Amino acid sequence: MSSGTPPSPTFEGDFVLDEVLPLESGEILENPKLHYAVYGHLNAARDNAVLVCHALSGSAQVAEWWPQLFLSGGLLNLNHDCVIGINIFGSCYGSTGPQSIDPETGKPYGPTFPLINVRDIVRVQAKLIASLGIARLKLAIGASIGGMQVLEWAILFPDRVTRAISIGVAPLGAMGLGLNHLQRQAIMIDPAWHEGYYEQGDGPRAGLALARSLGIISYKSVPLFEQRFNRKPNRHGEENPWISTAAGQNGRFDVAGYLDYQGERFPGRFDANSYIAITRTMDTFDPVRAHQSPFTAYARISAHLTLVGISTDWLFPPEDIRSLAAIIKAAGARCDYREMASVHGHDAFLAEPEQLVRLLTPVFE
Amino acid sequence: MSSGTPPSPTFEGDFVLDEVLPLESGEILENPKLHYAVYGHLNAARDNAVLVCHALSGSAQVAEWWPQLFLSGGLLNLNHDCVIGINIFGSCYGSTGPQSIDPETGKPYGPTFPLINVRDIVRVQAKLIASLGIARLKLAIGASIGGMQVLEWAILFPDRVTRAISIGVAPLGAMGLGLNHLQRQAIMIDPAWHEGYYEQGDGPRAGLALARSLGIISYKSVPLFEQRFNRKPNRHGEENPWISTAAGQNGRFDVAGYLDYQGERFPGRFDANSYIAITRTMDTFDPVRAHQSPFTAYARISAHLTLVGISTDWLFPPEDIRSLAAIIKAAGARCDYREMASVHGHDAFLAEPEQLVRLLTPVFE
Repeated sequence: MSSGTPPSPTFEGDFVLDEVLPLESGEILENPKLHYAVYGHLNAARDNAVLVCHALSGSAQVAEWWPQLFLSGGLLNLNHDCVIGINIFGSCYGSTGPQSIDPETGKPYGPTFPLINVRDIVRVQAKLIASLGIARLKLAIGASIGGMQVLEWAILFPDRVTRAISIGVAPLGAMGLGLNHLQRQAIMIDPAWHEGYYEQGDGPRAGLALARSLGIISYKSVPLFEQRFNRKPNRHGEENPWISTAAGQNGRFDVAGYLDYQGERFPGRFDANSYIAITRTMDTFDPVRAHQSPFTAYARISAHLTLVGISTDWLFPPEDIRSLAAIIKAAGARCDYREMASVHGHDAFLAEPEQLVRLLTPVFE
Repeated sequence: MSSGTPPSPTFEGDFVLDEVLPLESGEILENPKLHYAVYGHLNAARDNAVLVCHALSGSAQVAEWWPQLFLSGGLLNLNHDCVIGINIFGSCYGSTGPQSIDPETGKPYGPTFPLINVRDIVRVQAKLIASLGIARLKLAIGASIGGMQVLEWAILFPDRVTRAISIGVAPLGAMGLGLNHLQRQAIMIDPAWHEGYYEQGDGPRAGLALARSLGIISYKSVPLFEQRFNRKPNRHGEENPWISTAAGQNGRFDVAGYLDYQGERFPGRFDANSYIAITRTMDTFDPVRAHQSPFTAYARISAHLTLVGISTDWLFPPEDIRSLAAIIKAAGARCDYREMASVHGHDAFLAEPEQLVRLLTPVFE
């Protein structure tokens, strides 16, 4: 796959709902806003739209966080596809989230930002897409929370999406719920958390960095870490883990240096309240909950749905995704399960783009 | 296995080294102390001594943290075995650790407690055992860091241990090193950490609780969590994860309630500086490092050594332990590998005592 500069959006803008949005939690969002980006162009029939749904820390600018989609030989081609990215509620990249002003108070929502269900997000995404004159998405694709959005699109709006690809996602199991909980705890024990009322730029950096480090562990795998880091000392600087430093610490192992580096660069680009809001949205993802039964939910799907599991993903284990695909098929929907054989864990969809293309190309044909 | 009241020690006391201990880190411990407990009685030949080595948060009081060893039908029998437990350096249960007074300063070591290698501990344990007139241990057994001590006993003191059983341990891989690093970070971002100079009783409770919660995740397994907790809401109290609470939070899932409970009860019984010291000791465990090669190290072993792996252990993966056993065998030592088939992860040695007995009974015969 040849590399090149990721494309820039043709258009970026905001869609504001001109009414109050009732949320499944029982709360509301007044005139919520979705920030979105468009790559390429809609054709005359408006039937070439591809919705790419982002994950926890992603944004509407799909080409920035998933550039491999657009590469020559990649899954999408801007010569004929129009790619739309929409920032989710709760995020900090333009859509309504904890940093937005709560009309009730005139101040940012901060920690009082309501609990958002993936279905709340998708219902407003659907209005945005309709506002662009798109009756039917050619494809909805996403991984992680992006995959959660794709699945809800297929269930809630069966006539409005032709093809759906959901990567590395099923309702979170107990391990994933536990890990999300501890990531939020990490943020909240940082004194700079101030119960969520920190000043912008003065937030809980150390706590958010630790949350990110823990999240990253969940996106990788034991064999990958073994391959990359093993028991090597930190590669940057003269750190020796086998002796004490003056501070009563010892030098870091390479994996610790990596986790620290990944953690430390995160608070500069992401917000702590958003991290809490979006992990809560991840936790409550449950496509069946809004329907009478799994059958009732999944029988609604008319899109051609592909679920992709990753062999070493321990956050969303492939067996959970395979089981989900089986249930959806049993409900009568067209659903196939494909598995990436990868040592990269949950992140494989980003780390191994060629394999993903090879896996999914038959879907596109 | 019938239950009963765990036995009380016949004797508890301290062994103080009457000289300076040079540590592998290059630092020293002056007149370090080991607190120990004896169950049962030494026979006249003093050849019935069993050393039980404890794990991260354990103590010399073996019967308190591993009572199953002593139950009728268990691995040990105080009618003929004399069981000795020794608290390790760095701990807070009587042996020299961060809470001990540094003779150089007259104040507790706190965060300046030196980096301890497992070999440092075992060298002084050997002097303690010798001081009791025991020429040769009948058995040395331990799990986790306890298993690390057992392995170093077998290598460093080949003539002084007849049988050795090391459960759930090999040199930590990158995932384990990463997890330990994040547990220490959790402690250190707690404002009550005070760079390690907190007052006793006023330490970083929230950070240590979070560290413990994360440690607990590493001692369990994905299937175990799934079986126990699934996506159930918290069983204690009326918590609903699908709605917001007044505080802008939502109710916890059951697994979160469990992790919080386990975390919160830990700081009452364990010290933060000790947690940091002992996880550093875990990190630097590397039996080969003090020798020219794996062959040179392992060829020293004359004990009958059994390594036990646990099928779902992801902190000390069974394949790592199986590989270690193969290397040790290749060096000419008598070493066999046995595996617990358990959903309990690393903690299986505590959670499934009957299976451990069945697995190890042939070793004793």
